[in-house]
Amino acid sequence: MREQFDEQLEEIRDDLVELCALTEVAIDCGTRAVLDTDRAAADRAAEVCADIDTRGRELDYRALTLIARQQPVAQDLRALISGIHNIADLRRMGSLAAHIAEVARLHYPEPVVPHELRAIISDMGAAATAQAAAAQEVLRFRDQVAALELIWADDRTDELLRRLFAATKSDEWLYGAASAVNITLLGRFYERFCDHTVEISRRVIFVITGELPDE
Amino acid sequence: MREQFDEQLEEIRDDLVELCALTEVAIDCGTRAVLDTDRAAADRAAEVCADIDTRGRELDYRALTLIARQQPVAQDLRALISGIHNIADLRRMGSLAAHIAEVARLHYPEPVVPHELRAIISDMGAAATAQAAAAQEVLRFRDQVAALELIWADDRTDELLRRLFAATKSDEWLYGAASAVNITLLGRFYERFCDHTVEISRRVIFVITGELPDE
Repeated sequence: MREQFDEQLEEIRDDLVELCALTEVAIDCGTRAVLDTDRAAADRAAEVCADIDTRGRELDYRALTLIARQQPVAQDLRALISGIHNIADLRRMGSLAAHIAEVARLHYPEPVVPHELRAIISDMGAAATAQAAAAQEVLRFRDQVAALELIWADDRTDELLRRLFAATKSDEWLYGAASAVNITLLGRFYERFCDHTVEISRRVIFVITGELPDE
Repeated sequence: MREQFDEQLEEIRDDLVELCALTEVAIDCGTRAVLDTDRAAADRAAEVCADIDTRGRELDYRALTLIARQQPVAQDLRALISGIHNIADLRRMGSLAAHIAEVARLHYPEPVVPHELRAIISDMGAAATAQAAAAQEVLRFRDQVAALELIWADDRTDELLRRLFAATKSDEWLYGAASAVNITLLGRFYERFCDHTVEISRRVIFVITGELPDE
């Protein structure tokens, strides 16, 4: 009985890692859609987002059923409840990646990122991809040190966002209001995407320690 | 035993309604900060947001403890797990209201909304306040019809957001890129605020029926 329950817990954990891997694919497609004006990558981001949603809903149901049937306690209960929260974060990350791709798709074949800001957007994309990758390790190994490292690394994204907003608001902004709007949305979507990986990491620390670390 | 458990469930529900009432206060302060260049309202929004966070965390802990100790099933379990999700949504709504106030505070005493867009921002503020108020009723009475009405009403916010983005992106936009960035962020914050009330309503339907309605 206990063995079967452990197996089911393990499966849910594996599926969470897989869902997280899909968010990495989605954000990577989103970034390519934006930086390379790549229509196929934009379509792919939307597909992966839909896939994350479907799988997330199914996983949600399994976790809930397991809580109801097995009535777990302590760390197992924390893992399942955190898991349900993590699914919500991962689905949101999928949506944000799809939003990023959608900004590109709406303007296709015009590029949406002015030349001068390509480096920042590219860094934000790389940071988001790296955080989605790190979150998989955090989820897979329930590694508290890796979780803290991910949380600290997020300062980098905030710094990039500040630089992005400063550029659009400077007097030297040459690309007009419409472009500033696109850049603002992209920056915000990347930042939120990364925030969700921080939430996941905080929750993994909660599963391990029973305490949610301060924000 | 059962009686005491019912009481605790009832208390958690009441506290959720109260948390939701605080988000209504917060968004109302945020809107006043933005439309009336009201510094005190901006400070108040930040305070209420901090209060929502503290209370939300405490409520989270109580719900989790109740699940662990009482091992509820069926509707009670759904109510508690949905409750934990709702707390996350309500805390996020508080943050979004504070973000709105922060946009105003950063530019104080300059107004951030061009005259021509005041009506749309004011409508978005009113819609957000109305949805936070409606969500309290949905939570209090677990009313499926009210929940569906709230979900349908959200189309109005999406329409307002489209009009806002269209204005900033039009060739007739006269207020520069920095202003377009502020308006984009405000629009997005209001829209997300309202989205969370939709999530809460969907979850209340789930508590009642056991099925999460499609998005």
